[in-house]
Amino acid sequence: MTRYQHLANLLAERIEQGLYRSGERLPSVRTLSQEHGVSISTIQQAYRLLENLQLITPLPRSGYFVSPRKAQPPVPAMTRPVQRPVEVSQWDEVMTLLDTRGDKNVVPFGSGSPDLDQPGLKPLWREISRVAQHQPEAVMSYDMLTGRQELREQIARLMLDGGAVVSPDEIVVTSGCHGALAIALLSVCKAGDIVAVESPSYHGTMQMLRGFDIKAIEIPTDSQTGISIEALEMALEQWPIKGVILVPNCNNPLGFIMPDSRKRQILSLAQRHDIVIFEDDIYGELAAAYPRPSTIKSYDVDGRVLLCSSITKSVAPGMRVGWIAPGRYYDRVVHMKYAASSFGVPATQMAVASFIRDGHYHRHVRRMRQIYQQNMETYTCLVRQYFPCGICMTRPQGGFLLWLELPEDVDMVSVSKQLRLQNIQIAPGSLFSASGKYRNCLRINCALPPNERNRNALKQIGEAVQGAMEHFAIVRGT
Amino acid sequence: MTRYQHLANLLAERIEQGLYRSGERLPSVRTLSQEHGVSISTIQQAYRLLENLQLITPLPRSGYFVSPRKAQPPVPAMTRPVQRPVEVSQWDEVMTLLDTRGDKNVVPFGSGSPDLDQPGLKPLWREISRVAQHQPEAVMSYDMLTGRQELREQIARLMLDGGAVVSPDEIVVTSGCHGALAIALLSVCKAGDIVAVESPSYHGTMQMLRGFDIKAIEIPTDSQTGISIEALEMALEQWPIKGVILVPNCNNPLGFIMPDSRKRQILSLAQRHDIVIFEDDIYGELAAAYPRPSTIKSYDVDGRVLLCSSITKSVAPGMRVGWIAPGRYYDRVVHMKYAASSFGVPATQMAVASFIRDGHYHRHVRRMRQIYQQNMETYTCLVRQYFPCGICMTRPQGGFLLWLELPEDVDMVSVSKQLRLQNIQIAPGSLFSASGKYRNCLRINCALPPNERNRNALKQIGEAVQGAMEHFAIVRGT
Repeated sequence: MTRYQHLANLLAERIEQGLYRSGERLPSVRTLSQEHGVSISTIQQAYRLLENLQLITPLPRSGYFVSPRKAQPPVPAMTRPVQRPVEVSQWDEVMTLLDTRGDKNVVPFGSGSPDLDQPGLKPLWREISRVAQHQPEAVMSYDMLTGRQELREQIARLMLDGGAVVSPDEIVVTSGCHGALAIALLSVCKAGDIVAVESPSYHGTMQMLRGFDIKAIEIPTDSQTGISIEALEMALEQWPIKGVILVPNCNNPLGFIMPDSRKRQILSLAQRHDIVIFEDDIYGELAAAYPRPSTIKSYDVDGRVLLCSSITKSVAPGMRVGWIAPGRYYDRVVHMKYAASSFGVPATQMAVASFIRDGHYHRHVRRMRQIYQQNMETYTCLVRQYFPCGICMTRPQGGFLLWLELPEDVDMVSVSKQLRLQNIQIAPGSLFSASGKYRNCLRINCALPPNERNRNALKQIGEAVQGAMEHFAIVRGT
Repeated sequence: MTRYQHLANLLAERIEQGLYRSGERLPSVRTLSQEHGVSISTIQQAYRLLENLQLITPLPRSGYFVSPRKAQPPVPAMTRPVQRPVEVSQWDEVMTLLDTRGDKNVVPFGSGSPDLDQPGLKPLWREISRVAQHQPEAVMSYDMLTGRQELREQIARLMLDGGAVVSPDEIVVTSGCHGALAIALLSVCKAGDIVAVESPSYHGTMQMLRGFDIKAIEIPTDSQTGISIEALEMALEQWPIKGVILVPNCNNPLGFIMPDSRKRQILSLAQRHDIVIFEDDIYGELAAAYPRPSTIKSYDVDGRVLLCSSITKSVAPGMRVGWIAPGRYYDRVVHMKYAASSFGVPATQMAVASFIRDGHYHRHVRRMRQIYQQNMETYTCLVRQYFPCGICMTRPQGGFLLWLELPEDVDMVSVSKQLRLQNIQIAPGSLFSASGKYRNCLRINCALPPNERNRNALKQIGEAVQGAMEHFAIVRGT
């Protein structure tokens, strides 16, 4: 640690401890220089760092002041989506989001990609390299239809962590969790069917419904406890709903973990109405708390839960290794796997199996849980600093996604277009509604390390939001 | 070449040239030994080799005789499937076929896997190893939705060889040709739709129709010129058919290449009736003739041909690299790719792109074309020797699949069960019909090198067929 960083730390601690209060003037550069026996420029560097961290604010010709600490914004209230089945729209907006993928000039706050710049991934790509060299025949050949045995064994072990006892022979390997959900939906539903979803809900899943001509009914969802069981029950009494798609652990985009009691309640509701639960556990391994939360599958007694997951968020998307434990739908899922996607890539399956077996997986996930948790705290602070008042924000219990709710008037779809010109990509909330609700919301990917570039981008987002709010204030004449 | 192999060659040539006629007695071992100045055992080895090659037959205590040459069996006649849309059945039989995959004890004559024990594949697995080591970030990341640019560029080049001018931006990378066809079908058809297919037709495609609840109408098909355009036209006049799935080049399972004039005819028929053509070109690169045959896509003027292909048969299935050129259906196909299968595996895409770009692909395919052509000739000879009379057999113009038609009575489904106990897997013809026709047919994978083990297996198949025929002769009392 350099001298100025050391000094900045010291000052930050004093601010944290309340020795310097919000709005208070800090000692002058000259005073500090004499007090600590360091050069003027060292003090200036330290102050600049604290300024970047938004802890202090310079006032021209008056010196530095402790930045005002905003109160923690409230969490979003229970959502109130349209209470009837609708066809999913918003494809063009999703395409816009996907189009910037891979463009290094763009800050991808709207993406759902995990942090891949991590040493913990080294054993994985080394293993790919190794299997290609040492088992070329297996790498070149057709896979087994249900996926490689050694991988299914490791997946069964992971499922145990979530409380589900599933044998490797009851698991079907798929192309990511997305492929798992697609096969699950195609196996159970037909065109014209209705499926219930949390609201807001992951846009990829909803575009899937659109693709398969399945209608979505969006159910009110609480940002801390999940889908409203009462509202789902009402919908089940009113409509011929085939199943419900849930992300009960580290929900995308709201970040909640459904309490276990509610998981059991929703399962018994599903039993009473004889519907299927499509459980998406893709973020489940990234829960802040240890041990990881249980899956709904772990309470499933009659095989009506199709548990879908992957290593996309916990490890890396490029492996395309996902899975389904389809319960009583096993035979249909195997046939649909053959029909819709056929075989998988042996190389990545082999590498992932070794990665889990040799302990690298758990080590990596443990570390990433911490990193994402820290990132989310940092971004939460930064949002408080950069964004105007009057917003609501989730308190995620895992994963790496933050959800912000801005005042009703703010249209994040147009803000996102404006930000795109500044090479910043965001995911406006409307992507997460079948009917284009939540235009005043946005999801932020906190897997992006909070470095200077990304902090600046967040600041620009905050400014754009501020601009949009001022615009509306003028329009309304307030 | 060892001495006995040299001698065997010499004798084989003499038989070929008619110096020793069919049924004629060959010189004794002693005579030849003296004539060529080699040991008795060398002559015995040479004769044993010729015996294995079924060119000569030993008669106890009488010496060796030139095996009788059977006449080339006729090709199968135009097929006559049921002329109405049916739901595809036969899934259990397909599963039986898939179940043996990867079992080293089983001789997989029923599979469609190419020969993977080839030095030409070395640059490919080396490249996988290299990209994992040198571009780990790209390997770990989400792919582009339509597939990697450098791969699409190479695919566009390959399409040119088949006469189709398609830009890289009009191509969507998929998980093999199977994934391509699945996305193509899901993009164009709905449950309940009717699609026309060649008869016989690849079982994977038909199980796809079953999975998506699409009915198949099987159209009479000639084993040398392809689908009957007249019969297709009649069907189009009678039923609301959405499209037709064709494997016009090196058809699976019949091996024909549709003449160009017929390709144009079928396209203009499709235009008149406004239907879609799903063109499966997966074996097209393995045509015996050079340059490779044209695709129907190459004549397509209004974008109604969805050209699907992959490197599965020409290179290796384990890469899962396939593609669609969807013409006017591009937007729908991109959405359906997102809905049904989402992103691909970057590692194999990157490796395959380099493999093609650096010339390894064309070198490998050139060599495999020759090998498969030789194999098919050898297996054709062997079938003539091992199988009873009264069979019909295709004359494939490429690929590596032979199709045999046995007398009506022979039930290859039960023969296949019997052979399974002998660790031999075959594909009974009924898999290739939506309605379970062609029980008296079988498809043979000639990518299996005709070594002793595989020859013996073929011999056992021949004997089992012989046994089935005799059984029926007894039952019928003839």
